[in-house]
Amino acid sequence: MTLRVLGVDPGLTRCGIGVVDIERNRRATMVAVGVVGTSAELTLDKRLLVIATAIDEWLDLHEPDVVAVERVFSQMNVSTVMGVAQASGVVIAAAARRGIPVALHTPSEVKAAVTGSGTANKDAVTKLVTKILRLDAPPKPADAADALALALTHAWRAGSGMGGIGGNTGTDSLTPAQRAWAEAEAKARRAR
Amino acid sequence: MTLRVLGVDPGLTRCGIGVVDIERNRRATMVAVGVVGTSAELTLDKRLLVIATAIDEWLDLHEPDVVAVERVFSQMNVSTVMGVAQASGVVIAAAARRGIPVALHTPSEVKAAVTGSGTANKDAVTKLVTKILRLDAPPKPADAADALALALTHAWRAGSGMGGIGGNTGTDSLTPAQRAWAEAEAKARRAR
Repeated sequence: MTLRVLGVDPGLTRCGIGVVDIERNRRATMVAVGVVGTSAELTLDKRLLVIATAIDEWLDLHEPDVVAVERVFSQMNVSTVMGVAQASGVVIAAAARRGIPVALHTPSEVKAAVTGSGTANKDAVTKLVTKILRLDAPPKPADAADALALALTHAWRAGSGMGGIGGNTGTDSLTPAQRAWAEAEAKARRAR
Repeated sequence: MTLRVLGVDPGLTRCGIGVVDIERNRRATMVAVGVVGTSAELTLDKRLLVIATAIDEWLDLHEPDVVAVERVFSQMNVSTVMGVAQASGVVIAAAARRGIPVALHTPSEVKAAVTGSGTANKDAVTKLVTKILRLDAPPKPADAADALALALTHAWRAGSGMGGIGGNTGTDSLTPAQRAWAEAEAKARRAR
């Protein structure tokens, strides 16, 4: 029995989408990864339609057990935050329409889950995602790696990898996940 | 031949929706008005689902020619702006899915179109909306009146009331609209 998580790093210009299967023993396998981009020359309704259509296709094709979306922060650049929020609204509603649970995770939760540090840089996150999922090459662009990291974060934070919406689980459920990641990190270090 | 505009004042707690028919001679008639509210105790996905379902029903029932949505501003309260943006994303994508054009108007554009002043207060807007649409009582809550004002604004700003997406039409097309509103305002004053 596996938990299938679809992670989304929302955005109008680039929306990263990643699907990961996590087994009960925490082994994670990438199912699919992609990026949906829209041109700033399109009107907002056309851009949101492209994203809505893409997320519908991904949900129908992969039928995830849960959707993990990056929590949008108001601290972001003011000119981009509105578009990110609008895109995330479309993604969350698409999952809700299908009765798929949605979990939100902050960027620092993702960094902490993947690297053990909430202030890790993108390269560190990408490197560990690549290692954990046994990929031949790092997923690009960064939005794609972020989407996979979100999916992994959700599964690990949910505790056993079988939990429900683990957006705010305590440190009890974090500990084994962080330990697993630390082991993976150590392996990655040895491999360098 | 009439132009049917569905106006939306987006929000998670209250989403105002108003449908207005505007004839070529600028006479406007209210078709329907309503407010969709969601509890802050619901999770974000459930709240966006309620809004998505409602807007789908309104679009299917009234089949508007155009959807006018209030443009979200980053100047808003930081804690509410994200929810407003997410709700507006859901609304805009719902219209785009049906191939219905979407126009965005700022609050000051609405105030200017309805009252002639971009800094008019909500009471003035509600009063004129009530008068223009020949309603027995002011639409309540304010979100409902705002949605109707948005729909009217779009039709008037589009020039003849038959235009396409008139989100940024020039002063040429504004002048007759503003004149019409000024006449209505004068009538409203005489009626007091």
